[in-house]
Amino acid sequence: MSYQTIKYEVSEGILTITLNRPDKLNAFTGEMMSELIDAFDKADADDNVRAIIVTGEGRAFCAGADLSAGAKTFDYAERDDRPDKAASPIMPNGEIDWSHPSVRDGGGRVTLRIYECLKPVIAAVNGPAVGIGVTMQLAMDVRLASENAKFGFVFARRGIVPEACSSWFLPRIVGISQALEWTYTGRVFDAQEAQEGRLVKKVYKADELLPAARALAREIADNTAPVSVALTRQMLWRLSAQDHPMEAHKIDSRAIYARGASADAKEGVMSFLEKRPATYPNKVSTDMPSFFPWWDEKKYS
Amino acid sequence: MSYQTIKYEVSEGILTITLNRPDKLNAFTGEMMSELIDAFDKADADDNVRAIIVTGEGRAFCAGADLSAGAKTFDYAERDDRPDKAASPIMPNGEIDWSHPSVRDGGGRVTLRIYECLKPVIAAVNGPAVGIGVTMQLAMDVRLASENAKFGFVFARRGIVPEACSSWFLPRIVGISQALEWTYTGRVFDAQEAQEGRLVKKVYKADELLPAARALAREIADNTAPVSVALTRQMLWRLSAQDHPMEAHKIDSRAIYARGASADAKEGVMSFLEKRPATYPNKVSTDMPSFFPWWDEKKYS
Amino acid sequence: MSYQTIKYEVSEGILTITLNRPDKLNAFTGEMMSELIDAFDKADADDNVRAIIVTGEGRAFCAGADLSAGAKTFDYAERDDRPDKAASPIMPNGEIDWSHPSVRDGGGRVTLRIYECLKPVIAAVNGPAVGIGVTMQLAMDVRLASENAKFGFVFARRGIVPEACSSWFLPRIVGISQALEWTYTGRVFDAQEAQEGRLVKKVYKADELLPAARALAREIADNTAPVSVALTRQMLWRLSAQDHPMEAHKIDSRAIYARGASADAKEGVMSFLEKRPATYPNKVSTDMPSFFPWWDEKKYS
Repeated sequence: MSYQTIKYEVSEGILTITLNRPDKLNAFTGEMMSELIDAFDKADADDNVRAIIVTGEGRAFCAGADLSAGAKTFDYAERDDRPDKAASPIMPNGEIDWSHPSVRDGGGRVTLRIYECLKPVIAAVNGPAVGIGVTMQLAMDVRLASENAKFGFVFARRGIVPEACSSWFLPRIVGISQALEWTYTGRVFDAQEAQEGRLVKKVYKADELLPAARALAREIADNTAPVSVALTRQMLWRLSAQDHPMEAHKIDSRAIYARGASADAKEGVMSFLEKRPATYPNKVSTDMPSFFPWWDEKKYS
Repeated sequence: MSYQTIKYEVSEGILTITLNRPDKLNAFTGEMMSELIDAFDKADADDNVRAIIVTGEGRAFCAGADLSAGAKTFDYAERDDRPDKAASPIMPNGEIDWSHPSVRDGGGRVTLRIYECLKPVIAAVNGPAVGIGVTMQLAMDVRLASENAKFGFVFARRGIVPEACSSWFLPRIVGISQALEWTYTGRVFDAQEAQEGRLVKKVYKADELLPAARALAREIADNTAPVSVALTRQMLWRLSAQDHPMEAHKIDSRAIYARGASADAKEGVMSFLEKRPATYPNKVSTDMPSFFPWWDEKKYS
Repeated sequence: MSYQTIKYEVSEGILTITLNRPDKLNAFTGEMMSELIDAFDKADADDNVRAIIVTGEGRAFCAGADLSAGAKTFDYAERDDRPDKAASPIMPNGEIDWSHPSVRDGGGRVTLRIYECLKPVIAAVNGPAVGIGVTMQLAMDVRLASENAKFGFVFARRGIVPEACSSWFLPRIVGISQALEWTYTGRVFDAQEAQEGRLVKKVYKADELLPAARALAREIADNTAPVSVALTRQMLWRLSAQDHPMEAHKIDSRAIYARGASADAKEGVMSFLEKRPATYPNKVSTDMPSFFPWWDEKKYS
């Protein structure tokens, strides 16, 4: 797949995905949705990718949905550029079949794919990030921002609602009260407010943003076992949302048992005792433990 | 219904509910419980109400349960002013029927009603807020405080326990560790500590508190679509508590589909493109989408 | 039971548990696991224990798993010092029985026991706390740190994964983003970073740490009803993780009903009205309400 709306570049174990419609402030389209999902599929399958940075080309991160369709922008039945435009959720009796695939929100398809990812994902927010431009970041793990970044959960100002599973993600990141305030007002706010509200970890001068994101990616890539990191990502996102720590105990017991006997664990302990850098032999593509995935995919479809 | 213990005033789209027993520091009673629930019913039914501010008359916000009954204050069987005093949960065999309606905590009836609310709720904490005086605020969305405010989760000092569903709400707002510390010690603390612990968003000089609360309410009322805000409130509170983002995807997909085709969305996009204020035609009373409410009321009763 | 790896000292209502293998930086062993579980059993059964402080002897809090077994440290099948070494989860067909008791993670046995505890638990982190040395703290309620403390979720650097239910606990304490960053990088960080990331409440000079922990324990022990605190602990940890506030309403209604009629509540109200210290007559060993425990133990086993 050759990409039209994003760039996909791997260098020294770090994949950089760059939203790449700079003349449109990287506005989100159906094509970008498909390309992002494909890029995360590719990243998960490539053992050379140890961490992922997502950023934007030009002066914006992502200005949100492309509004060039005007008043019918969010009216799927009136749009002819939807990937599944042939399908319709409208039943013979005129009611909507809410479980019809064509009802599915495109932003949510992206964030659910990122949620499934086996590599750490760092957002390097170089400029304005509005609507899906910010909600797509919520399934990423850490957000670093340029002092030029701006953020806006503007949905209530467009007559729609927060999407891309942001009602699930945002309160987990910033707390329910801050999440409500930003989504109620729909206001556009700067990087400083984003940091105070814990949406972003740290704010950098524009030319220090990507180096900082790469330094964090390097810290992971240079020191840790890939299978450990893949398991850690799925364990933290999934198990923290369970209603009792016993769910975590069931899974981390299996993981410690399985990984404890691995060549990675032997190398991890011995390199530490011998005070030398570690070289972990196991790979995500071939060495995930037999109990993985532990969840019932059907339960959440 | 004419209120004895609260004031209900709507002005320019903003409802201000004022706890109004100033000679008793607005202490909470069964009557106040019923009036608060009625006020939120009324607010939800009134399209002129775009946001709600809750504050206290006089020098306190709410000093907690009225202790004028002395030692039998919390002993329901000994109290003759309970709304359902005729009922008793004591079964013929002498044991308590824990699911009997008369066992239900009055504070929880209030916070569950606020939880169901379709309008943003801002607490303007003008003075001491202790016991139910602070736990009732936890189902509100944002808390602003006067420098005269004080807070106390004093239950363990009265021999009882945190109520009004505060075991659910408080950790979501301030984190589990801060929630435990405040409820374990039962200490009364000032607005500064409340802000550091993330219970309140910001602290104001006394005479700047209500203007700040009104400015936040105005920011919502002047810029956003009422149906969008109503959906946003229920989506964030409910979907953030689910164990997987797919639950959010199911609902926000429907909401984007339904609202995207609405007159509000057309106005939202066009007013933005035309750089003019928006006038949203849809109303909460008549235009909530057909899938709302999406949850099973029976599941949580 | 006389302890070999910990000290157990009760003074004026406060139990101090000291990890006590100072020549090994208090590294965690199977024996320490068993002794910690026993100590929490003892503390819960002793009404003289109103609060628990956990700290480390010498210069460390706990350096993590004892690595003296070298490469086979985490390989249970190769270890001969596991409490249940005779048992094996390997089935005749060569596959692993993931639900076999010997698969259970030792750190998780400790944190699940602390989770069940009926007394407040304060970690006084006097020095380095790495691996299980920090994850064991996550089931404690408040963490105070010496400026000499260091923390590290180093699992991905050892080829294993976060354990001791930390995938459930850590995001609840520090948020999902900070939790992911610390577990992805496996970096060792200082007390300052721990406080900024909300892992610890406050940082003290080394000789002020234990006095601060004792002052917090005293504030609880001197002012509150033991049964109230026991219920508060289980209510906040358990009910905050439910998917709807109605679950909290069901339980806190029962608790207010039962405790409201107690001698503790009468004393709590009257001592407040009479502006005198309270003396609460009820005990955890004998006076927990009849609906406690309210959860289904089998559901989480």
